[in-house]
Amino acid sequence: MPSVNKIKYLKSLHLQKFRNEYREFIVEGPKMVSEAIGSDFDLTGIFGLSSWAGRTRDIPISLQKRIEIVTPAELARISYFKTPNEVLATVKIPEISINEHIFNDLVLMLSTISDPGNLGTIVRVADWFGIKHIICSPDSVDVYNPKVVQATMGSIFRVNVYYKDLQEVLSGLPQNLPVFGAFLEGNNIYKETLPGKGIVIIGNESHGIDEQLKPFIPNKIFIPSFSGGAESLNASVATAIICSEFRRNNY
Amino acid sequence: MPSVNKIKYLKSLHLQKFRNEYREFIVEGPKMVSEAIGSDFDLTGIFGLSSWAGRTRDIPISLQKRIEIVTPAELARISYFKTPNEVLATVKIPEISINEHIFNDLVLMLSTISDPGNLGTIVRVADWFGIKHIICSPDSVDVYNPKVVQATMGSIFRVNVYYKDLQEVLSGLPQNLPVFGAFLEGNNIYKETLPGKGIVIIGNESHGIDEQLKPFIPNKIFIPSFSGGAESLNASVATAIICSEFRRNNY
Repeated sequence: MPSVNKIKYLKSLHLQKFRNEYREFIVEGPKMVSEAIGSDFDLTGIFGLSSWAGRTRDIPISLQKRIEIVTPAELARISYFKTPNEVLATVKIPEISINEHIFNDLVLMLSTISDPGNLGTIVRVADWFGIKHIICSPDSVDVYNPKVVQATMGSIFRVNVYYKDLQEVLSGLPQNLPVFGAFLEGNNIYKETLPGKGIVIIGNESHGIDEQLKPFIPNKIFIPSFSGGAESLNASVATAIICSEFRRNNY
Repeated sequence: MPSVNKIKYLKSLHLQKFRNEYREFIVEGPKMVSEAIGSDFDLTGIFGLSSWAGRTRDIPISLQKRIEIVTPAELARISYFKTPNEVLATVKIPEISINEHIFNDLVLMLSTISDPGNLGTIVRVADWFGIKHIICSPDSVDVYNPKVVQATMGSIFRVNVYYKDLQEVLSGLPQNLPVFGAFLEGNNIYKETLPGKGIVIIGNESHGIDEQLKPFIPNKIFIPSFSGGAESLNASVATAIICSEFRRNNY
């Protein structure tokens, strides 16, 4: 049974301020905990119902001793969600920084993505398309926000997400690395020749790509609409179609 | 000011049971209300804050008289959402039925889509790609659910959504109409020749396409993964990539 202080600590991790301070985040539910266990991430604690703990034979013994049994009422207190899902775990936030070698493949840049579901889905999409690195503007939603974590469906353990001033990164890119951005006035993506490496910038759900980044984006692309009415696509949907277009050329 | 009975009525429309009974649904926020006004749908009532009502010059006079001013407290009572957005309107559910001519274009079929956000995003994606008709299995989430309506971002007014036994529809299709379905064991969609018309079936978020529909699907397709880890794509994301693939061939 976790102590009162422990419960207080776990609840504090619902907030970005405390995640940044303690460098830990929470993952919830058997699937996410199992993904965390199978990942390179450092799992620091597991809090599960006894019903869940009865089904943990495939958990390494070194981690078994980190399991603390909680009651449904305790789980409800420490869970971020209305409907807690049997178990949650604390995981160390990885200390990663951008290395030039990441630009040998396709890299996503997100300019002020603010919806947690969108960011989580984008991480999942990136994982599907084998994109290992996402650079977010510092004002984007925190990838360790519980809603984002859940929406990644485990892909958070396979994709590196950095927060960095995008102008700074774009200024220091390797020469000749192509930079693409999604714009309403861009070229029809279906007719473009898309490379196997480069940067793809996705804009905010309502305001698109930050004005200040535009000078860095020689390649403006656009997903053509076949409708008279629809004004835009959801940011994660647009990202998925763009990633699919880049990868289909290199399959 | 709406009467107590009116408020009770509006709140009842949050539930599918009463939407089915009264054949009306609710749209919320200035953008959605404005989309409803510009659509072919029959708008039966508008309930807005006085701040919103001060900006209604572009609303036709015939509709102006349907506006009832509500207080923020009243709006909070009738709104489905935690953060009500200035105005909501009641709209008649269109009485539509499947006509054979709809099969002269691409038609989506959804097998037990249960997440409201997914259905709303799929309707928006369909609208973007000029797909005018979606047939849902009767156990799919209701498209007039407030969360679905909002996620369509107005596309609900441009896409016809039917609820019908899919086996029955598939049994009665025009001869030679190609039927496609997304399956893990399907063919690489990037290498298929995709027609300008036909049926595309999307499965449930966890369980895929209903077993009973499989005999009707000669064309199994699959979005290839470039990752070792990701197990699946979100249903709306997969739909978007598939629709993009069908349309890119015919652009």
